[in-house]
Amino acid sequence: MKIVVAGGDGFCGWPTALYLSKQGHDVAIVDNLVRRKYDEELRSNSVTPIYSLEERVAKWKEKTGKEIKTYIGDLNHYDFLSEVFRQVQPDAFVHFAEQRSAPYSMIDREHAVYTQQNNVIGNLNVLFAIKEFAPSCHLIKLGTMGEYGTPNIDIEEGYIEIEHKGRKDKLPFPKQPGSFYHLSKVHDSHNIMLACKIWGIRATDLNQGVVYGLHTEETKQDPVLANRFDYDGVFGTALNRFLVQAATGHDITVYGSGGQTRGFLNITDTIRCVEIAAENPADAGEFRVFNQFTESFSVKELAEKVQKVSREQGLDPHITSLDNPRVEAEEHYYSAVNTRLRDLGLQPNLLTDDVLRGILETAIEHKDRVIKENVLPTVTWK
Amino acid sequence: MKIVVAGGDGFCGWPTALYLSKQGHDVAIVDNLVRRKYDEELRSNSVTPIYSLEERVAKWKEKTGKEIKTYIGDLNHYDFLSEVFRQVQPDAFVHFAEQRSAPYSMIDREHAVYTQQNNVIGNLNVLFAIKEFAPSCHLIKLGTMGEYGTPNIDIEEGYIEIEHKGRKDKLPFPKQPGSFYHLSKVHDSHNIMLACKIWGIRATDLNQGVVYGLHTEETKQDPVLANRFDYDGVFGTALNRFLVQAATGHDITVYGSGGQTRGFLNITDTIRCVEIAAENPADAGEFRVFNQFTESFSVKELAEKVQKVSREQGLDPHITSLDNPRVEAEEHYYSAVNTRLRDLGLQPNLLTDDVLRGILETAIEHKDRVIKENVLPTVTWK
Repeated sequence: MKIVVAGGDGFCGWPTALYLSKQGHDVAIVDNLVRRKYDEELRSNSVTPIYSLEERVAKWKEKTGKEIKTYIGDLNHYDFLSEVFRQVQPDAFVHFAEQRSAPYSMIDREHAVYTQQNNVIGNLNVLFAIKEFAPSCHLIKLGTMGEYGTPNIDIEEGYIEIEHKGRKDKLPFPKQPGSFYHLSKVHDSHNIMLACKIWGIRATDLNQGVVYGLHTEETKQDPVLANRFDYDGVFGTALNRFLVQAATGHDITVYGSGGQTRGFLNITDTIRCVEIAAENPADAGEFRVFNQFTESFSVKELAEKVQKVSREQGLDPHITSLDNPRVEAEEHYYSAVNTRLRDLGLQPNLLTDDVLRGILETAIEHKDRVIKENVLPTVTWK
Repeated sequence: MKIVVAGGDGFCGWPTALYLSKQGHDVAIVDNLVRRKYDEELRSNSVTPIYSLEERVAKWKEKTGKEIKTYIGDLNHYDFLSEVFRQVQPDAFVHFAEQRSAPYSMIDREHAVYTQQNNVIGNLNVLFAIKEFAPSCHLIKLGTMGEYGTPNIDIEEGYIEIEHKGRKDKLPFPKQPGSFYHLSKVHDSHNIMLACKIWGIRATDLNQGVVYGLHTEETKQDPVLANRFDYDGVFGTALNRFLVQAATGHDITVYGSGGQTRGFLNITDTIRCVEIAAENPADAGEFRVFNQFTESFSVKELAEKVQKVSREQGLDPHITSLDNPRVEAEEHYYSAVNTRLRDLGLQPNLLTDDVLRGILETAIEHKDRVIKENVLPTVTWK
């Protein structure tokens, strides 16, 4: 299958591109390399050293003989995107190429506007390019579980059957996103839904939970293939950030009470979910939503897991509570359905102590690279 | 009350600005005059001659002694918008300043992108400006009934209580908008909802139906104060367009079966609804939604009403069905709640034969201005 991985230089995109290439697909990466520029802007970095995209794909070719073509450019530039579609004629377009940090989108007006413009217009361009150049191409779009917020009812996969005043309909699940970033994903979902309806585009929205881990079978083959590992207050997500805090002698900092509960998954499951979606495309005109996570945890539970494993490694991190920089419910109901990907064959890699230890060891190995002043949150929602 | 009317040179904005000024409010118009440029782009016009904004406000001052300040600029330019907020310090910001045509947004990719960027980013800027310069300012935002689409259940005002698997929550009503324009309004609504939640902004979303008519007590005072009257396939809406067709000897053209049912209201009710919202502001942090229409009609019913009144005037328009240029259900359930504005005092001006005759007479008076080749739809959804 000819597959474009947009955002293929990023945390989810890079291991996905490698995995799909290994599985025999003809993979092309589209990326504007902006994730590296965010690091420069924030004076931050990845715990793991990461190599240039050029070096990465060259090493992959050296190791496996497989070629991954790269197209360096921006989805917001339609001429560029058109050329990619003309050259690749993809069967599937995996779309990771969005600004993906909630705190980044909340820095100020410019970052909010940038995030929504970049994500929403880039995604619109993808829809128009599919319509124009590859109408049967399957759009596999990265959404987020954060689109749903934390309603007081069970979260279904994209749609909910509602009975109201004696009538019934299956309608899009109501959205209550909690940042300008999460909002951009909600906007994308609505835009894609219309494109499917009016143009017959086939699309799968992967409403992904928080991803932890970094290594996959493929990225482990060589240091040049290593995946990035974010820990700063802007791009680091709960579990990975806690492990870096533990490795560097920092307190594990929980925002508020830590009762915030979310769906999580291992990066090794991310890449498998994308493969499952690609192998089982949506029907023409279908806007299909999968909730892509394997387990739910509260932030406090994660902190405690990290503390336990760290102690076994001779570390002794404390868990402390910070004033929550976000505006979010800290105690709430959370129960989300996630059966569709498992029904299609996903076998979850759960969060075991071994998994935690593996990530912790990587954090310890590179702990001198950690810029300590970046660990705590500096961006507030207010 | 100090009130900004953004989009105050347009079809809804101009009569709203006059009415609020007459009622004693201190009104400032913000407009980039782009509605006039769309006419140039589409080689179209208003059936009624419309004067420059400068002439309009000068005439208003001459007639009433009341001054309406004008700020010519774009909400997408934050420096400009900031300056407006600094100078005016508004108590209410009435936001009509968006690209408001569904067909315009469906012309091609550029028009879709323009519509979403213009509307979504402009509205984001308004939210940030309120936060920065006038945190207690009440945002009165024009939404659309089209945000809801045509679900098979009753449409509530913004929120719906859902019972699901033994639990309950009041959640945003699911959205199924039918064009890139309608989508932009959905995106706005979600963005505003978050801003209210995290910053304590007070906002009212007026989910307006299709507006008909053009005259108000104020616009009738002088030809220079006249409101615009759109009839072309891009900016003309069902009822007004039918009346122009009847006046010019054109068939009344219904898209498809004409079973499409929507909420409608008279422009004289639009201006009153805005006043009601302004006089009864949302609470700090509240995102309030009013469904702003007074009656529901199918397109076919409207065509028949126009035909009947036209015949009484000695005209004899035929009703013909065109292939529907849109992708929409032509036979569907439609029942929407609209009690909140009436509870606050709205006394609807219903669609009587007299009202139809009044609009028809204006169309006949200016029928030589109608550019006939603009009447039929040229933009398709596919």
